[in-house]
Amino acid sequence: MINAERLKREMQTISTFGALPQGGMSRLAFSQEEAQARAYIKTLMQALGMNIREDAIGNIFGRIEGELPLPSIAIGSHLDSVPLGGFYDGTLGVMCGLEAIRTIKENGISHKRPLELIIFSCEESSRFNMATVGSKVMAGKLSKEALSLLKDKEGVSLYEAAKAFGCAVETIESAKLSPDTFYAYLELHIEQGPVLENKGIPVGIVTGIAAPIRYELTLQGRADHSGATPMNMRSDALACAAEIILHVEKIAKEEAGETTVATVGFANATPGVLNVIPGSVRMGIDIRDIDAKALEKAAVLIEKGIEEIAQKRGLIYTLKELTHDTPVSLDKKIIETLEEEAKKLQIPTLELPSGAGHDAMHMPYVATHTGMVFVPCKEGISHNIAEEVNMDDVICATEVITKTLITLANEG
Amino acid sequence: MINAERLKREMQTISTFGALPQGGMSRLAFSQEEAQARAYIKTLMQALGMNIREDAIGNIFGRIEGELPLPSIAIGSHLDSVPLGGFYDGTLGVMCGLEAIRTIKENGISHKRPLELIIFSCEESSRFNMATVGSKVMAGKLSKEALSLLKDKEGVSLYEAAKAFGCAVETIESAKLSPDTFYAYLELHIEQGPVLENKGIPVGIVTGIAAPIRYELTLQGRADHSGATPMNMRSDALACAAEIILHVEKIAKEEAGETTVATVGFANATPGVLNVIPGSVRMGIDIRDIDAKALEKAAVLIEKGIEEIAQKRGLIYTLKELTHDTPVSLDKKIIETLEEEAKKLQIPTLELPSGAGHDAMHMPYVATHTGMVFVPCKEGISHNIAEEVNMDDVICATEVITKTLITLANEG
Repeated sequence: MINAERLKREMQTISTFGALPQGGMSRLAFSQEEAQARAYIKTLMQALGMNIREDAIGNIFGRIEGELPLPSIAIGSHLDSVPLGGFYDGTLGVMCGLEAIRTIKENGISHKRPLELIIFSCEESSRFNMATVGSKVMAGKLSKEALSLLKDKEGVSLYEAAKAFGCAVETIESAKLSPDTFYAYLELHIEQGPVLENKGIPVGIVTGIAAPIRYELTLQGRADHSGATPMNMRSDALACAAEIILHVEKIAKEEAGETTVATVGFANATPGVLNVIPGSVRMGIDIRDIDAKALEKAAVLIEKGIEEIAQKRGLIYTLKELTHDTPVSLDKKIIETLEEEAKKLQIPTLELPSGAGHDAMHMPYVATHTGMVFVPCKEGISHNIAEEVNMDDVICATEVITKTLITLANEG
Repeated sequence: MINAERLKREMQTISTFGALPQGGMSRLAFSQEEAQARAYIKTLMQALGMNIREDAIGNIFGRIEGELPLPSIAIGSHLDSVPLGGFYDGTLGVMCGLEAIRTIKENGISHKRPLELIIFSCEESSRFNMATVGSKVMAGKLSKEALSLLKDKEGVSLYEAAKAFGCAVETIESAKLSPDTFYAYLELHIEQGPVLENKGIPVGIVTGIAAPIRYELTLQGRADHSGATPMNMRSDALACAAEIILHVEKIAKEEAGETTVATVGFANATPGVLNVIPGSVRMGIDIRDIDAKALEKAAVLIEKGIEEIAQKRGLIYTLKELTHDTPVSLDKKIIETLEEEAKKLQIPTLELPSGAGHDAMHMPYVATHTGMVFVPCKEGISHNIAEEVNMDDVICATEVITKTLITLANEG
């Protein structure tokens, strides 16, 4: 039903904004490159006759009225990327969302409810160390003060960057939307993991979005000469860290929930040289789950293990919680509708959780129903210039989401 | 006999070069801070009327002629430190060596043989991952090519750093000395271990020096999204590194020899951020023993374990041997002379091995007799800003070494 050639061509065009010589792209939030991509999508939205508005944080809304004055059905994603990122994370969801609405309009398919395309502002945490800023603002979770405190590497605050970008950020409260503003919100996104590709399934139906609990752990042992200190007289912070890393892995693999993942992303030893026993180690721990109980269980078991291991080895430690979020379960009704539409199209689907965070996490605050569709990505690689998708999968997912849009838009 | 007050005062002065606000010092090889310390010691050597020369790697020799044209007696150590190091490792040996020669000169004590103070270049491996560079060059063990291959964290080669420091490294072969250039070489050093303090003995007589086998190990896994990649689909280089770190610890503790020690000094993950599974890890392994057989056994067992662990986890690795030295037995004649002189002074001594490497390891290639004296250090702590000595012990050891210098300088 959709125009696959057009979608491919437009994906190629939008991929030029921020493209890198070595492949992939860098299109940071509020950058010149993002402004170019936004200008391009707006010309396409205008050509479709959408009514376009931008809110105080730069979220773009393109609206086509329905037959009745009911809450709309929205679909969207983001256009900003990580540095050295791929072409598909976010952008694919925007372009497929546009294609879905355009397909409905062009084919004269009736829809009682209005249809909206949303382009979220600043979804990636790369620049300001906070993700999903646009949807958080929409849900009323971020104040002007919070935006002033978030700074990039150059010391520019998110508030300043948004203002320089042309956002009316001084009226940030105006961007907050009421509950049930939207009847439904849908998002298409690349999986960013290997599950769908491994199972050879073109469309994933997301059951929930995992939330992270994150820690910074500092272990304090004693730096000693690596040649002159007998093994039984050491207080080696890196050996202690090693035991904790394996403990974190074991808890996620064997003892928490089936969907739990946990990662130690770094373990930096000080002084960090060959001839000194590491005196201290600073490490980062990231635990995620879509199951809130399993997430809490994993955190408790990991904290307990850290205490036991450090005590056994006689080391002092400091455990600082950086993040403690709650997983989001996605809407059962939307999951069922997506599955029914896929079945009618004879497209295989798989229910799976999202390990990564998305704007859809915050949309339940403003939308009655929220759902997500995943497209497999090559080898699960994402946040990387090697990010790649199969266009056949993209077409399947866009067909499913288009049919679902039509069904939802005629409900109520 | 020695001037203890002067020694203390000069130790305080030289400790200011590279001193850190939190205590201790950072005085890396070929740094500005080391240049300051070298300038200071040269003024003291000049004041003593020494004839000073520097070789192509920056070793400093200060010479006082004897009554006869015989090979000299040398005493020395190094002025460079580890990052966040203490004031005594190396520097104490230089200052006590100077004080010993000065005591002989000032008291008009006759010495047939010339006396030389040697300040070795780049003894610590912290900057270029190779220790005792100055004495290795003196022994003809390092070529210009080898010096170009050794690089610091910033990618500066040892060759470049030495050249920028003012060394005539292009004529490195000129720094090689002939066998028996020195009749004897003596070195005073802090123990860097807890044995002497534990037994309450002020002077250690070193029987042999442990040698290191060192590796740089690189593990190649796959960087993936830390939220979206299930535990059983990961190739986590840091979790693999953790297992290897514990293996290295276990081999040294339980399976090699009684005197074996092994240390992983760092395990740096890339990209090293909270939301990405570590794709690769670079780590440094240091194995030491005074028992050559046990050292080789430990190396073989560690290499075997690395292979097994990487294979089990499906990671590729590169193991690069950085150093493969042989433990050194020190000279029986010097051990006896040191013990006789200590006995005359009624100073208790203990024979013990050195777990740490020292320039004295390479001096048998250029000196007929080589010996070392240890001073206890507080709690065995070294390579740490908390490094500390008891000045009474330092005075005892300097007296013993001064008497030994006099005896040896009048032999032959």
